[in-house]
Amino acid sequence: MPHIITKIERAAPADVEALSKFGSATIHEAQGRLGAINSRIKPIHRNMTVCGPAFTVFSAPRDNIMLQLAIHFAQPGDVIIMSAGEYEEAGCFGDVLGNACLAKGIAGVITDTGVRDTQELIKLGLPVFSLSKCIKGTVKETLGQINGNIVIGGEIVRPGDVIKGDADGLVVVRREDAAEVARMSQAREEAEAGYIEAYKSGRTIIDVCNLEAVLKAKGLTTDL
Amino acid sequence: MPHIITKIERAAPADVEALSKFGSATIHEAQGRLGAINSRIKPIHRNMTVCGPAFTVFSAPRDNIMLQLAIHFAQPGDVIIMSAGEYEEAGCFGDVLGNACLAKGIAGVITDTGVRDTQELIKLGLPVFSLSKCIKGTVKETLGQINGNIVIGGEIVRPGDVIKGDADGLVVVRREDAAEVARMSQAREEAEAGYIEAYKSGRTIIDVCNLEAVLKAKGLTTDL
Amino acid sequence: MPHIITKIERAAPADVEALSKFGSATIHEAQGRLGAINSRIKPIHRNMTVCGPAFTVFSAPRDNIMLQLAIHFAQPGDVIIMSAGEYEEAGCFGDVLGNACLAKGIAGVITDTGVRDTQELIKLGLPVFSLSKCIKGTVKETLGQINGNIVIGGEIVRPGDVIKGDADGLVVVRREDAAEVARMSQAREEAEAGYIEAYKSGRTIIDVCNLEAVLKAKGLTTDL
Amino acid sequence: MPHIITKIERAAPADVEALSKFGSATIHEAQGRLGAINSRIKPIHRNMTVCGPAFTVFSAPRDNIMLQLAIHFAQPGDVIIMSAGEYEEAGCFGDVLGNACLAKGIAGVITDTGVRDTQELIKLGLPVFSLSKCIKGTVKETLGQINGNIVIGGEIVRPGDVIKGDADGLVVVRREDAAEVARMSQAREEAEAGYIEAYKSGRTIIDVCNLEAVLKAKGLTTDL
Amino acid sequence: MPHIITKIERAAPADVEALSKFGSATIHEAQGRLGAINSRIKPIHRNMTVCGPAFTVFSAPRDNIMLQLAIHFAQPGDVIIMSAGEYEEAGCFGDVLGNACLAKGIAGVITDTGVRDTQELIKLGLPVFSLSKCIKGTVKETLGQINGNIVIGGEIVRPGDVIKGDADGLVVVRREDAAEVARMSQAREEAEAGYIEAYKSGRTIIDVCNLEAVLKAKGLTTDL
Amino acid sequence: MPHIITKIERAAPADVEALSKFGSATIHEAQGRLGAINSRIKPIHRNMTVCGPAFTVFSAPRDNIMLQLAIHFAQPGDVIIMSAGEYEEAGCFGDVLGNACLAKGIAGVITDTGVRDTQELIKLGLPVFSLSKCIKGTVKETLGQINGNIVIGGEIVRPGDVIKGDADGLVVVRREDAAEVARMSQAREEAEAGYIEAYKSGRTIIDVCNLEAVLKAKGLTTDL
Repeated sequence: MPHIITKIERAAPADVEALSKFGSATIHEAQGRLGAINSRIKPIHRNMTVCGPAFTVFSAPRDNIMLQLAIHFAQPGDVIIMSAGEYEEAGCFGDVLGNACLAKGIAGVITDTGVRDTQELIKLGLPVFSLSKCIKGTVKETLGQINGNIVIGGEIVRPGDVIKGDADGLVVVRREDAAEVARMSQAREEAEAGYIEAYKSGRTIIDVCNLEAVLKAKGLTTDL
Repeated sequence: MPHIITKIERAAPADVEALSKFGSATIHEAQGRLGAINSRIKPIHRNMTVCGPAFTVFSAPRDNIMLQLAIHFAQPGDVIIMSAGEYEEAGCFGDVLGNACLAKGIAGVITDTGVRDTQELIKLGLPVFSLSKCIKGTVKETLGQINGNIVIGGEIVRPGDVIKGDADGLVVVRREDAAEVARMSQAREEAEAGYIEAYKSGRTIIDVCNLEAVLKAKGLTTDL
Repeated sequence: MPHIITKIERAAPADVEALSKFGSATIHEAQGRLGAINSRIKPIHRNMTVCGPAFTVFSAPRDNIMLQLAIHFAQPGDVIIMSAGEYEEAGCFGDVLGNACLAKGIAGVITDTGVRDTQELIKLGLPVFSLSKCIKGTVKETLGQINGNIVIGGEIVRPGDVIKGDADGLVVVRREDAAEVARMSQAREEAEAGYIEAYKSGRTIIDVCNLEAVLKAKGLTTDL
Repeated sequence: MPHIITKIERAAPADVEALSKFGSATIHEAQGRLGAINSRIKPIHRNMTVCGPAFTVFSAPRDNIMLQLAIHFAQPGDVIIMSAGEYEEAGCFGDVLGNACLAKGIAGVITDTGVRDTQELIKLGLPVFSLSKCIKGTVKETLGQINGNIVIGGEIVRPGDVIKGDADGLVVVRREDAAEVARMSQAREEAEAGYIEAYKSGRTIIDVCNLEAVLKAKGLTTDL
Repeated sequence: MPHIITKIERAAPADVEALSKFGSATIHEAQGRLGAINSRIKPIHRNMTVCGPAFTVFSAPRDNIMLQLAIHFAQPGDVIIMSAGEYEEAGCFGDVLGNACLAKGIAGVITDTGVRDTQELIKLGLPVFSLSKCIKGTVKETLGQINGNIVIGGEIVRPGDVIKGDADGLVVVRREDAAEVARMSQAREEAEAGYIEAYKSGRTIIDVCNLEAVLKAKGLTTDL
Repeated sequence: MPHIITKIERAAPADVEALSKFGSATIHEAQGRLGAINSRIKPIHRNMTVCGPAFTVFSAPRDNIMLQLAIHFAQPGDVIIMSAGEYEEAGCFGDVLGNACLAKGIAGVITDTGVRDTQELIKLGLPVFSLSKCIKGTVKETLGQINGNIVIGGEIVRPGDVIKGDADGLVVVRREDAAEVARMSQAREEAEAGYIEAYKSGRTIIDVCNLEAVLKAKGLTTDL
């Protein structure tokens, strides 16, 4: 049943803002090693980062009619994220739709299929994450869904969940967990800063990470 | 029967020149979504573009004797394009042959196997497209063909056909269609510029793309 | 039997220094097309190069306890190289351990699994080579080995062997062959410089590479 | 938070029974081309079929402690379906656990990682579907979840949903849709039987499928 | 331009008959190691063999309208061979169309996408070769071509060329070369029978294959 | 330096005999989860098993001259195992060489490239394990090594080590460990028989595997 849902419950803007400051790896770790989208989906330029509530699209491979509609109905700040069958040999998004996104204030576009006009998109400065870069155009024939729960890169993404992405990949945070995960990410970042200082000051890993006891318990031997 | 054909019918220089101005995605779309070479073959640097008549090579994997001969017999402006069995673990081309290409005025080199000395090739400024980057050298044992019809990345390429490539990938245009495809590419580019202006001026996708009727016909429902 | 060997025989520093000047492809060719590690393992930035004696790690996939221990026991100038099952969906190394490596003067880190915090690692300037970039963290549960012989990217690497890597990939040189391979690399580089000069001066490939006789023997025909 | 849910709402036995009579392809088509699990997950012998309510497991790759627990807590007739990171190089299930399943009356085991002892499992007659066959054993270290919603082969599976599998692959039917999908599958099978009879009686595809009008609308031309 | 060509020049029936007696590997070798279609396309049961003139189809992925039309227009004895973008996650052909093929006397169906109802197709006895087995149905939306030159599995296939397939894979023979290739296949088979007899009678490989001279020329050493 | 070593130290025949009784998965587990060759290398028929001392070959991809020589120099009972670059699109071995192997009493052939004439090889009854089945023939041009240490499927295999293979895959046992591993395999098999009896008699997994304490330590919760 093809259907478009436009009214979704988004994560609180303050939570999105809070999460935007952390790397995707930090967030993933902070929420208990959950929510990582398959690492094959990457930004088309390593400098790109994205953070915002998910506006989800379920599409047939090689078809971008639902993506066009999503751009139409999304709100400023939304991250459009489209599941289209992990099909590498199609480019569903390029600079024309890129301009449409910029005009609307959309925060970024993510898909498990390909995109094209990548040099122009990089110039536009719109964050775009994809499985591939491919010139093969798409048709506008098959209806799908907008703002249902989708599976992308092996993870479930619900409309309004927070998506954070950078050069390392993408992570999804449940909208209701966003505040808590931001707080845990902050704590983790501080702990990591402490570790880094410890290493810079010359302390050893066995000391900093307290590995001695662990290894004794596991029975590791050395030649020392 | 190993054989070298050196005399080929090339696309008209004016048509090559005309096509060189368009992106590979635009050309692919303009000629009816045909001619795209598999997206796994990409430039070794995203800034590289290439356009020229194909000088085709059919080679055994892990062998570059035919590539050497192709460089010898190609003319200035030609794009050498070599099918070698989609073998990733070999580097058939590096900076020595890169210098030989530059000295001859060859427009670019494309292959479905690997290349090496990529940092040097980037400095040389020779456009190189490949399936992989690999240090494993090749032998010079098995004869193949030069300027037969080849299959590369799932497409048929004939000698003299136009190859256009950029960061998005590669497209082949039949030499006899080059003028017409350039004209259609120009038309498409102008139409796209119009779309982009429309989006910048605040018009919506449903309006710009006239989606209302399409959706009604297909029976899409929304929550609005 | 989990065991850590800390005392290894390293290639002579002068040999490491000599090899560091050559590209990985040159070294691979110079030692008879041997020692190339699978081309899927690449630096996280194309400007990175690494050269040093191998400090080897054998690890379970999705676990980095052995990597932590390797950083602890390695010496300045060592290249830590870890085999972990060619598993793409894990990030075993990031900026915290990156700082630990820098503090110890470790020359670089190589693995056949993924890494994360790649933008930070690039800023740190530590050479890192991996199969993937992935945010999924690892556990610290399963013991492995340090400084046993490992298989990585299809090649055997022994502790103390020299690893050289750059944008084209990685090559291993047996520690006892390092001096001889450096000498052969130098000879090859000079020969290649001669070829390049020959091409720049306008000589043809058939002339430079003496292909005439070869082709006659193999019975190649042309349309000339 | 590792947790085991043992009390789940299962599809009605009559609906499971009804669905068991149809092929996975028929069911997939009947419910609107939805619910197909990635085709790389296949039975270890093409004669195997399975149908039952899903007893879901979320596991770390290379670990089978949660699978052991699932076998403990599942009920007769359940299909244990385990998501473990699409990791091919591990065998999480073999003939010992296969006997445990048979003793409990479990209807089948499905996973996106590997299994082993496949010849023995085929002899046992327990339906087993996997991504690979691999001898590498697993550890029992990391806790996961039992009877949460999982993603496997790109589809969401909820506990109690019906899983049907055969040589063609696997399909999931929402437990609340099971009766309706069985009815539609029946209708589809009858329609297909009609088509087959039509072909056997010599009628043509254009006639049987009423293609004439479709093609006229799309403007297809022929040389007839 | 979507178009259907129904009138094609087929290889002579006597040549098809002659080729049908040889294995695909023998034919491939006999015609100079040419014409092998990518080995990932395999019969759905290892006992299947096929031989006949190619009736070619070019189709969009996930669409089987052109396949239906091909079945309509093909003649008894034809092998329908369809290029559809190497897309694994679709099943374009099943038992209903399988019955339509049998009713028409079609010799076999080959595609670089998936098929379904494989157990039923095996029972029907229709030779079917595919890239995958997948339950995901296809649409009937996009027109393609019938009896143009296609690329499938990296090879060019022209309408009327002979396709021979068995458990080892598929080979295409140009229709005008069919008689000559059959003759060379016969010669090769006789030579191979001679080799087999020689081995059975206890002669060694170095003797039978005359390797002594070859090895001397290449400078191989042994410890004997 | 191409070289053939013919005199190797083989595992004791009694140890080979002892290991031949156990499945590859059992042996792998018994020696501490070591020695598993990548699971993509499988027998061409699931009924095949092989066990014997390794006669190792290192070959260029697409070349089988070293394989011919290996067949010449191997002894009855040897398992020829050839590393050839994990290249799928070549068939290096077929029924002619299969007959040569049978005539010599060779126990089996294993390679990380492809084989052909698979139906004939199955009829011959010679165990053959490969990465692929492919009709593309090979050349006899490039020398390699016989009875050096090789890497195949990610594992080091030394001449004379024991190779055991079956439908689940392949495992290598160091020749000096063979007796001990056979004894541990026997112990493991007896333990597994005990587990199976326990399950058949109705005991639960938590009871049989003593999971209660483990779970308590790890803090798992249930809804019971």
